[in-house]
Amino acid sequence: MSISHDAEISRLLTDYRHGNKPTDTIEAAFDAIEATDDPGIFISLVDRDDALAQARELGGRIDPTKPLYGVPFAVKDNIDVAGLPTTAACPDYAYTPTASAPAVDRLVEAGAILIGKTNLDQFATGLVGTRTPYPVPRNALDPSLVPGGSSSGSAVAVARGLVSFALGTDTAGSGRVPAALNNIVGLKPSCGALSTRGVVPACRSLDCISIFAGTVADAWSAFSVAAGYDKGDPWSRPLPLGRPTLPPSVRIGVPDDKSRVFGSDTAAAAFDAAVDLFPDVGPAHRAVDLTPFFATAALLYEGAWVAERYQAIRDFIEGRPESLHPVTRQIIEGATSLSAADAFAGIYRLAELKRATAGIWNDIDVLVVPSIPDVCTLADIEADPIGANARLGTYTNFVNLLDLCALAVPGPFRGDGLPSGVTLIAPAGRDGLLAAVGAALHGAAGVRIGANGFKIPAVAAQPAEAPLASVEVAVVGAHLSGMALNHQLTSRGGVFVRKAETEPTYRLFALPGGPPPRPGLMRTNQIGNAIETEVWALSREAFGDFVTTIPSPLGIGTLNLGDGTTVKGFLCEAAAIDGARDISSFGGWRAYIASLG
Amino acid sequence: MSISHDAEISRLLTDYRHGNKPTDTIEAAFDAIEATDDPGIFISLVDRDDALAQARELGGRIDPTKPLYGVPFAVKDNIDVAGLPTTAACPDYAYTPTASAPAVDRLVEAGAILIGKTNLDQFATGLVGTRTPYPVPRNALDPSLVPGGSSSGSAVAVARGLVSFALGTDTAGSGRVPAALNNIVGLKPSCGALSTRGVVPACRSLDCISIFAGTVADAWSAFSVAAGYDKGDPWSRPLPLGRPTLPPSVRIGVPDDKSRVFGSDTAAAAFDAAVDLFPDVGPAHRAVDLTPFFATAALLYEGAWVAERYQAIRDFIEGRPESLHPVTRQIIEGATSLSAADAFAGIYRLAELKRATAGIWNDIDVLVVPSIPDVCTLADIEADPIGANARLGTYTNFVNLLDLCALAVPGPFRGDGLPSGVTLIAPAGRDGLLAAVGAALHGAAGVRIGANGFKIPAVAAQPAEAPLASVEVAVVGAHLSGMALNHQLTSRGGVFVRKAETEPTYRLFALPGGPPPRPGLMRTNQIGNAIETEVWALSREAFGDFVTTIPSPLGIGTLNLGDGTTVKGFLCEAAAIDGARDISSFGGWRAYIASLG
Repeated sequence: MSISHDAEISRLLTDYRHGNKPTDTIEAAFDAIEATDDPGIFISLVDRDDALAQARELGGRIDPTKPLYGVPFAVKDNIDVAGLPTTAACPDYAYTPTASAPAVDRLVEAGAILIGKTNLDQFATGLVGTRTPYPVPRNALDPSLVPGGSSSGSAVAVARGLVSFALGTDTAGSGRVPAALNNIVGLKPSCGALSTRGVVPACRSLDCISIFAGTVADAWSAFSVAAGYDKGDPWSRPLPLGRPTLPPSVRIGVPDDKSRVFGSDTAAAAFDAAVDLFPDVGPAHRAVDLTPFFATAALLYEGAWVAERYQAIRDFIEGRPESLHPVTRQIIEGATSLSAADAFAGIYRLAELKRATAGIWNDIDVLVVPSIPDVCTLADIEADPIGANARLGTYTNFVNLLDLCALAVPGPFRGDGLPSGVTLIAPAGRDGLLAAVGAALHGAAGVRIGANGFKIPAVAAQPAEAPLASVEVAVVGAHLSGMALNHQLTSRGGVFVRKAETEPTYRLFALPGGPPPRPGLMRTNQIGNAIETEVWALSREAFGDFVTTIPSPLGIGTLNLGDGTTVKGFLCEAAAIDGARDISSFGGWRAYIASLG
Repeated sequence: MSISHDAEISRLLTDYRHGNKPTDTIEAAFDAIEATDDPGIFISLVDRDDALAQARELGGRIDPTKPLYGVPFAVKDNIDVAGLPTTAACPDYAYTPTASAPAVDRLVEAGAILIGKTNLDQFATGLVGTRTPYPVPRNALDPSLVPGGSSSGSAVAVARGLVSFALGTDTAGSGRVPAALNNIVGLKPSCGALSTRGVVPACRSLDCISIFAGTVADAWSAFSVAAGYDKGDPWSRPLPLGRPTLPPSVRIGVPDDKSRVFGSDTAAAAFDAAVDLFPDVGPAHRAVDLTPFFATAALLYEGAWVAERYQAIRDFIEGRPESLHPVTRQIIEGATSLSAADAFAGIYRLAELKRATAGIWNDIDVLVVPSIPDVCTLADIEADPIGANARLGTYTNFVNLLDLCALAVPGPFRGDGLPSGVTLIAPAGRDGLLAAVGAALHGAAGVRIGANGFKIPAVAAQPAEAPLASVEVAVVGAHLSGMALNHQLTSRGGVFVRKAETEPTYRLFALPGGPPPRPGLMRTNQIGNAIETEVWALSREAFGDFVTTIPSPLGIGTLNLGDGTTVKGFLCEAAAIDGARDISSFGGWRAYIASLG
């Protein structure tokens, strides 16, 4: 049982517009939780009456300032919620905070309604979900599989449709592995995009809050609300989040032959099937050697960073080591043999590996890997508690160390009927690009959401708007995607927004000079031509920097678009038009260049 | 004895233009070294004949591609020079590299001629210059003082005029403390601006190569040659270096009352005298609470970072601990009690302190501190080898940890005739700003260079150009100073740069509409009018933001100014000029508005 397909945010909001009430949703959520035969999902629940009161306080009408109006969600129990115990799945460690994590506050302010705190691998150390003194949550699709961790309860709650989205945390893959094992979406944002204040640290320098949802659009809705710079969190960064809009061209990288690590042919075949479904938005996939990525991954548990886990609970583990889960204790106490010099040696090695892997992002925009090399059963983890867990992190452990963002999305199911997932990876700050590609892939995968059998909705056309605090600029010449100067936009973090034509009062001229050849656009007071443009979004700083590079006789003014809107864009000084060829009849620079053959 | 005032780079080059030969300079340098009664300055010298051969190879004429043509320099003996031993002042550690550090290569390629490798506090651990198994270099001004360290030999070589400049390294103050004690300039660049490949690490994550010279201009000449991104060095960064040009306004910060740490009233008075000399280029000095800066400083030796020093020579110190200077060994072996968890705890504390100190740079551009809280005598360091050393780092230890750049310049001498210095500090990437302010201060201090008695040359008048990493934009209408929209510049932190006229090919029109009334500027292909503009400087972000506010039909293009330069500036679309009044003959918007009465 679940709260039905209404768990999808856009459907919930639509239903509210048609008269449904948030209290109905909350009642349904609690009913569904009670009816669910799995005591391991939640460690604590909000009092039903309190949640209903909160739903009533939202008022009876959808509030445009509350984009998550009446949306039920869950929070992993290593993230503070005022008044509820934070256990980190270690009862002896539990405390009851008086303030919620800022990310939780932001969601609640946007109208989301918290249902409960979810189970996890103790101290977020694990990728299996079984390292907990509470009942182990059951995998939502197949009870023989581990639920995945460490954010086990959050993933299962979403996969079962008990909540619309759930917060996890993700240091080593805890927001991606359980997404793959439960057939849902796991957004591992750029580190620092969401405040980590109020989170029980695992590796403080690498931790981030992650989002589980049934669809990429839902994950993005929660993410865009929860994200925000927090001066009080030293790891918070003012990052461009981008927008979930598919650009005209995306360069995809996939593991090369020697980097293909799978536990079975079934898993490999499912990954290949997912890659084949990729939206046709760029050049042929590039094979990437993941050797330095795997070397980075090894630093996390086999190297210095396990000492962060020790430092995070140092007083506790030194005072009450017997309070820990035995496997968790074994892993974290591994840190005691490491010296400060070892820690710096690890930091040096990471610096080298960052440098060794940085160049790949000149050649690709998104790296696509299996979320996990294979499924993992409860029997597997029973037989080999540490090794089977470690294998699950093959494609996830390196991501935070290398300051990348990632998005796990379901791919087509495996030949044996089990779920399979792929993870998209890009440098920090490109979350929007991942969301755009991931939504297209998820839509193409032909799978249903989680365990509840509902088909994912068609990907809605994204409204073409610029992200917050960015500038849209219409380009008409060599800056168009695929052309010689487009890199001046992409290297500044520019994101493609939309194609647009000018209103039909412009003329386009081929200017003398170059290379590269460049056009000049001029508005006239007569009927002229509608000229093809592409609108790109840049941060204000990047825009300012970009404008400084534009040579005479070009400049940036205001363009009137055919849809009645205006946007900043390229214009040309009239003095430069004398004698230039009028190429307006081509309708744009791309067509003109093509005509040159 | 020294190679005379010719050690100043611009004088050397002038003399070369008048017929002097680099071989004369090199002969003079070696003669001066032989005649200097101080065996502690150099650990090894280049073979005189090899240096002379290199001088001859430069050819007989100044080469504009070699900005350091025939300039003699020295290199601290923890930086590799191919074919010379690198000792790091530890003979048992010595090795002879086959390649030079890239920074050295760049200097040699620019025509500089290496004279020798200089003494240092062993493994660059110390600020006194006495922790060496070689003879201790003598302070160039007063033999009762320590030379300062760790870059002792490099500083003394410059102060004695034996070379024009010298490379040091600076992790904790090693490029600034000896500059202050020897009355010369010490430039501690932004970390990552110069490659640290080929440097024996102290704290690899914090190390940088520094420059000693007699004047800021000389230090800048060497710095701008030696700096450059190095893909092979994981700590190298592509940084804007800026220009040593004094901006129209600089906001200075000084320690507040409780942050004034001095060893004597004499030292305090000298600092105050230096601050009083500050160029009048901004608002009143702002008092800054240095508490979090001092807390950062404590992390370096009392906290985790000493483990970097251990890791740097780990095999050596574990294998042959008796080969170390006893004080150096005592300090570095302190790392053995630190765990990896301690290291991460230090990293967390530093992240908090970075956040706690970041805000100050919204209020000031340059922090001015004493380079050292007081002089230090050989007797002081004999009595208290670690404490006296630590006190010297009061104002230097925090700089690299907080990712700041710094410039130590001589201030007026103390009442007791000993040298005194101040250090200018700014965020990484603002090296040029420090050089501009430092050159003005050094010129105002009325001191001579180093120990050789030559007065520093007058600082050439700096043209008023834009501050670092900013954009200049020419305004022609309501944005002119005193007019209706000027606040759109000033509220964005814009600073006035200069008045300028366009080249006489423009026409100015009074556009319909407003308020406020606005002009439109258009370039023509005929002789038109020179139009009055004001050039303002904005940060790139502010510029980007400003451009977004400019309404149609105005935009930002490139203006040709009457002095032959170009600058970003306001232009108007031709389509808007139809029917507008041509007001070009007024010569500018201000005169036109005045004519309206």
